[in-house]
Amino acid sequence: MEYHIGVDIGGTKILIGLVDDNGNVTAAKRFEMNRTSQEAAVKTILESIDDFMSSIDILPNFIGVGIVGHIDYQKGIWISSMNIPIHSLVRLATMLEKKYGVRSRIDNDVHCATIAELFFGAGRRSRNFIYINIGTGISAGVVCDGNLIRGADNYAGEFGHMSVGMTGGACICGRTGCVESLASGKGIVEQASREPSLSGRGPGELTSRDILELARQGDPAATETVGIAVKALGSGIANLVNLLNPEEILLGGSVVKNEPDFVHSIWNYVELNALPISVTSLQYFGLSNLDVNTIGVLGASSLCKL
Amino acid sequence: MEYHIGVDIGGTKILIGLVDDNGNVTAAKRFEMNRTSQEAAVKTILESIDDFMSSIDILPNFIGVGIVGHIDYQKGIWISSMNIPIHSLVRLATMLEKKYGVRSRIDNDVHCATIAELFFGAGRRSRNFIYINIGTGISAGVVCDGNLIRGADNYAGEFGHMSVGMTGGACICGRTGCVESLASGKGIVEQASREPSLSGRGPGELTSRDILELARQGDPAATETVGIAVKALGSGIANLVNLLNPEEILLGGSVVKNEPDFVHSIWNYVELNALPISVTSLQYFGLSNLDVNTIGVLGASSLCKL
Repeated sequence: MEYHIGVDIGGTKILIGLVDDNGNVTAAKRFEMNRTSQEAAVKTILESIDDFMSSIDILPNFIGVGIVGHIDYQKGIWISSMNIPIHSLVRLATMLEKKYGVRSRIDNDVHCATIAELFFGAGRRSRNFIYINIGTGISAGVVCDGNLIRGADNYAGEFGHMSVGMTGGACICGRTGCVESLASGKGIVEQASREPSLSGRGPGELTSRDILELARQGDPAATETVGIAVKALGSGIANLVNLLNPEEILLGGSVVKNEPDFVHSIWNYVELNALPISVTSLQYFGLSNLDVNTIGVLGASSLCKL
Repeated sequence: MEYHIGVDIGGTKILIGLVDDNGNVTAAKRFEMNRTSQEAAVKTILESIDDFMSSIDILPNFIGVGIVGHIDYQKGIWISSMNIPIHSLVRLATMLEKKYGVRSRIDNDVHCATIAELFFGAGRRSRNFIYINIGTGISAGVVCDGNLIRGADNYAGEFGHMSVGMTGGACICGRTGCVESLASGKGIVEQASREPSLSGRGPGELTSRDILELARQGDPAATETVGIAVKALGSGIANLVNLLNPEEILLGGSVVKNEPDFVHSIWNYVELNALPISVTSLQYFGLSNLDVNTIGVLGASSLCKL
């Protein structure tokens, strides 16, 4: 049995796991991320990996890293991130290879999660699927004919910045009506904070989960907010279905976790609005079966399989 | 030198060409399509190919066919078309192979045009590009890492039915705000026919070319209509750029042919609205360099190269 290390780096935390060839995460440890500067961020990542390596008694033969941001996958370079101040290229794969004497690859977080699906989830059944992460932000990994779509500069997958053009939803990207601005965790909270009856509880006080729960209880403002999120995601996913004719659509991320009603409402919208031929091709629409907590670690460790 | 036959079947005409290995269309002939019934359509196609074959003194070693509709590319079956009444499977590739004793393949029209780009246009420079046809309808062919994206059932590419959700534009697919309903030839004419000052000239009297010309002359209603088309196409293409991170975007079809100002306005919208990293990846945005009249024939004949 071979063992690989998977490192999942977010804006606030680092999760590191030891993963066997069958995709079992046999050990995992969580570290705080320090993103006060590029130097602090890189130092924290390296120290966390050191800490984890010294806690296991197995020699892994690969270290894969998933990071929120723009990654040069071929060269193993961390180019930039929205929420971590990277101002010069970080040759992370080379650093890790030199330090630990094992092969290393890095990629962005949603590509990693999609690679986890490719080897241990949807990819076992299908060669054409889309994994959509709905968390603080929204992004997607597209697999066509068994291959992850990377695009010209490994930046494919910014489904969150698909504008479906509805009123409202001024997005950080400068457009309006982006799926992310209306249906991500952050987007749902921001939309809700504009509703008068919910405005006593602002962005800091309500989570998207609270708003979904309030909608379930019949609160009109929460229902309106969730309806907009369903329509934005439904419309965006119908666009994906029409454009790419996938066989499966997997949803993951904190916003949809344990929210079957929300997922079902999105499916109803997609089924009614996407082209009938493409709807017929869809064999599965629903939550990813992989553990939402470790899908990033599993995917990062699976970069060795590409 | 090898020669291939390319057959481009639309709702009203059939264009058949003889194409050499270098992509030169050395002979071509146009026939009227008969779409009164499935039987009449198939008979007309076969008779047209017969006619063309007897007019050339070269023995081709492949017949490729491009058809508007849903095609089973693997099995060579014409499944359905929007505007031709196909009610049972047409095993066209097998028919042609038996009749002429040469290899045959069939695919849909936009896939064929994209394959022409792949071998004789953008594909010579880039492994990640999108070809968008803007004619009576709108559709796209997506090439990622050198491969045409077909999807689960060869139905990928329905970019015309990407809703960008602006008001207006009730689409034949049942949604509103589809790119096709606002920016195709048919869509532009329909939008214009709602404008009071242009309403004296209805869908039968004005073409999209007339409306683009009226807008250039400063007609306010035409300017408004063209502005909506630019915004719809610009927003849809920005969505594609964000999702797929292409290196090139090629526009073809009757609506954009000889309309550099229209194309330039769309580019301005895309450049301003797509994510900066993805805009930086775009090395080319503009008209296809391939002959709009024969790109379908060239692509169909190139199906032998896949």
